[in-house]
Amino acid sequence: MYVSVIGGDDSTSSEKDLERAERIGKNIAELGHVLVCGGRGGVMKAACKGAKEEDGTTIGILPSYDKEEANEYVDHPIATGLGMARNSLVVMNGDVVVAIDGSHGTLSEICFAQKYGKRILGLDTWDIDVVENFTGIADLVEELKKIEDPSG
Amino acid sequence: MYVSVIGGDDSTSSEKDLERAERIGKNIAELGHVLVCGGRGGVMKAACKGAKEEDGTTIGILPSYDKEEANEYVDHPIATGLGMARNSLVVMNGDVVVAIDGSHGTLSEICFAQKYGKRILGLDTWDIDVVENFTGIADLVEELKKIEDPSG
Amino acid sequence: MYVSVIGGDDSTSSEKDLERAERIGKNIAELGHVLVCGGRGGVMKAACKGAKEEDGTTIGILPSYDKEEANEYVDHPIATGLGMARNSLVVMNGDVVVAIDGSHGTLSEICFAQKYGKRILGLDTWDIDVVENFTGIADLVEELKKIEDPSG
Amino acid sequence: MYVSVIGGDDSTSSEKDLERAERIGKNIAELGHVLVCGGRGGVMKAACKGAKEEDGTTIGILPSYDKEEANEYVDHPIATGLGMARNSLVVMNGDVVVAIDGSHGTLSEICFAQKYGKRILGLDTWDIDVVENFTGIADLVEELKKIEDPSG
Repeated sequence: MYVSVIGGDDSTSSEKDLERAERIGKNIAELGHVLVCGGRGGVMKAACKGAKEEDGTTIGILPSYDKEEANEYVDHPIATGLGMARNSLVVMNGDVVVAIDGSHGTLSEICFAQKYGKRILGLDTWDIDVVENFTGIADLVEELKKIEDPSG
Repeated sequence: MYVSVIGGDDSTSSEKDLERAERIGKNIAELGHVLVCGGRGGVMKAACKGAKEEDGTTIGILPSYDKEEANEYVDHPIATGLGMARNSLVVMNGDVVVAIDGSHGTLSEICFAQKYGKRILGLDTWDIDVVENFTGIADLVEELKKIEDPSG
Repeated sequence: MYVSVIGGDDSTSSEKDLERAERIGKNIAELGHVLVCGGRGGVMKAACKGAKEEDGTTIGILPSYDKEEANEYVDHPIATGLGMARNSLVVMNGDVVVAIDGSHGTLSEICFAQKYGKRILGLDTWDIDVVENFTGIADLVEELKKIEDPSG
Repeated sequence: MYVSVIGGDDSTSSEKDLERAERIGKNIAELGHVLVCGGRGGVMKAACKGAKEEDGTTIGILPSYDKEEANEYVDHPIATGLGMARNSLVVMNGDVVVAIDGSHGTLSEICFAQKYGKRILGLDTWDIDVVENFTGIADLVEELKKIEDPSG
């Protein structure tokens, strides 16, 4: 399964958000899922870092033409040259989406995820109808596990 | 000046919203502006209809490859084949954005407009920080006029 | 009808090519067609110039986010932020394509035009199977006229 | 290093081309490179098959929204929803491009690769200036090895 992690970049994320993103990245890898993100800093980087601690696989779908833009924990940077429109691809490529913190770029991704029929699990993020917000990381990961194994 | 009008499609817009979209389209044309929209139904169609009543020019930036998808009041349909990602182009091409009603597609456009540094004037739409919401059509048009002539 | 004109930019086009592009732009406008192009210099600019001499309408689909990039003869610049991938949109939006001179960017447009099932009329351009090459401007315009009126 | 393999799909490729694509895919994996392609049939599928025989990693950048469209040898399908415009991304993501056989879609990729400044090694493909055509698979792989180790 592919899990898209979306959220704030360096400029907006708090220490607490980054820590939680790292923990969720770790959990995604432990569950055997591939982590997809926008490939840059902040929540994206923290989540990739977490996934790599568990030897997970990380894919970063970048706005620019330049793979060097990817953070150091991205295994497979995908350059697009699409600018902000690459947000559409970030959520299109997840079977489920996890949103942590985030500003208007993240909100655009939440909207695209809704359009593509994805479930969106949220932590400290936009409070709109299509986001299933969780109060803690444990609850969110518990829900992810259920999605992993629908028969469970 | 180019004004992007964004908002709900046929399935979500109320009669009142459509009526207001038509009136705003008319005002945009009266002010001598070109109307840009997503080219389809609902608010987009009503706004184009209004603009054409005043002999304005209308451009519809479409998600599909097929110009026939445009509503009958679009002068210049622009096919993109980009699907939802065309939302980015709709607001990129306005000097200012007017949002009326609308669901998650509209919200994604509001987010892109913010990223592109556009002002967003709203009427009965999403209540988020970057939208300047107006209570009535007259106030919104008054504001549009000021933008038209910054020296005024 | 919309006619896409593709071809070399400032760096590659000869005086002769620019002159012919201008004449073809003029003819397109005389036939009452809207001219679509990539909005920049060289053949694109010359064709737009020709179209405006006959009061035609010109649309320029730009690679960048910046409408200021359009040449002065473009009525409706459409910013895309797609870079080279906007080549796809340039030919998608023509009912027929005219290729004059041109380098590898033009060749990519010829290929997309083929994929979108468009006829491609050529003048001094790439000599590949899907291009109908004409030796002179008069012959090419004669063919354009026939397309204009299929019943003729 | 990432190597993009482009070429004909099921409808155009000969048995011989598919066999050579498979061998090249195998060589790419042996050299430790990641194989990038358009993710579908024909040359793309054969190259991925070859890479997987050597436990290589394969990425398929797809035109549609649907990862199921990828051939069975793609490790990481990337959905784009961009249609033909995804051709731009296929070559943008290779450090070098290998073209085998192929029709107009492949030619559009060759053009984009030229624009992005990539070297294009060809086998039985379009004979245009920017393609370095090789007569046999051994020569092409020899050249790939040199690129792998520029100091060699």
